[in-house]
Amino acid sequence: MASTPKVPDIVIGRLPLYLRALNVLASQGRDIVSSQELADRLGCSSAQIRKDLAYFGGFGKQGAGYQIGYLQEQLRRILKVEGQWKMALVGAGDLGHALVHYGEFENNGFRIVAVFDNDPRKIGRRIGEFEVLDSKLLPHLISQKGIRIAIIAVPAHAAQEVADVLVQAGVRAILNYAPITIQVPPEVRVQYIDPVVHLQSMSYYLEPNE
Amino acid sequence: MASTPKVPDIVIGRLPLYLRALNVLASQGRDIVSSQELADRLGCSSAQIRKDLAYFGGFGKQGAGYQIGYLQEQLRRILKVEGQWKMALVGAGDLGHALVHYGEFENNGFRIVAVFDNDPRKIGRRIGEFEVLDSKLLPHLISQKGIRIAIIAVPAHAAQEVADVLVQAGVRAILNYAPITIQVPPEVRVQYIDPVVHLQSMSYYLEPNE
Repeated sequence: MASTPKVPDIVIGRLPLYLRALNVLASQGRDIVSSQELADRLGCSSAQIRKDLAYFGGFGKQGAGYQIGYLQEQLRRILKVEGQWKMALVGAGDLGHALVHYGEFENNGFRIVAVFDNDPRKIGRRIGEFEVLDSKLLPHLISQKGIRIAIIAVPAHAAQEVADVLVQAGVRAILNYAPITIQVPPEVRVQYIDPVVHLQSMSYYLEPNE
Repeated sequence: MASTPKVPDIVIGRLPLYLRALNVLASQGRDIVSSQELADRLGCSSAQIRKDLAYFGGFGKQGAGYQIGYLQEQLRRILKVEGQWKMALVGAGDLGHALVHYGEFENNGFRIVAVFDNDPRKIGRRIGEFEVLDSKLLPHLISQKGIRIAIIAVPAHAAQEVADVLVQAGVRAILNYAPITIQVPPEVRVQYIDPVVHLQSMSYYLEPNE
């Protein structure tokens, strides 16, 4: 199947949510799911799911539902997460520790392969299987290992400088936990993990305390 | 101004992103921003921003741009984050430590007021200003303090049980860091922090390593 030339970013951004829901269903022993059930689980419309998947050829017969295993495979192929992307983690604080011990990367296409910090008290310490490396080694190790993805878990004031070094060394996708917008060239993707955004989209619905 | 009866969830979910971008502009000393500049910063269309804000009355004169301070105020009012919502944090591991030390909650409408864990080795320890409390105290303290929002930062296998206790005690909004979908009654909102979803929506765009 030829790859589609241009799928909207917003559609690509929803595919991981579909894949996550399918993974849950598969772990429950399910084989088939309708677009309606998938939509109900995700809080979207079944039309949206069908339309999104149609960019890639559809993957389901009208009325028959989706074969979960097949759709998982196809989504993994489209999202390029059949293998494992090597990731650099910058920041060996509490969040860095939590990320090293996060168990969901490896089954979902990613693997931390090096941990960096610029704090002399942290360099040389162990986190899980890793020895924390001096950030000065970042440029060399990233290009040597061909790392394209990095996670930034440093304080806000340090994030832009870290991003600059990462991009210069060849990183093309950054997951940024620092609470600051970072500037990168157009060929580099950035995603933000921002708990405030999630909290604020729920507080709207809350009744103030009596 | 009367509150609008029903604004789509997806629109509400975008307001915190607008507010975050406005906060950045304000911190740079800016007073006015056009919907086009805001759109460019957010990677969306200016029509979407105007349409989203029109649900609440608009907030800008055609061609004059938005008054940043005024729009910040209005968005804070709409999202109900002019004050500080009290939050319970469940899970005193690495991630819990990182969340206690996260500096962005208090300026954005939220404040952790209690930290819980069920691990006897963690109960009684200090994290920042908090003493880690026994999870058994959750129901009592949540209803006593009128807490409506909680953050779950426990392992996946414990998340559903924690969610059940939280909901039973009166929590109506949960930010879940555990890599598992939790079931809650329809009156309770849940948002997920899932680094895999963010990573997978970037890997699509990466060229495989040579």
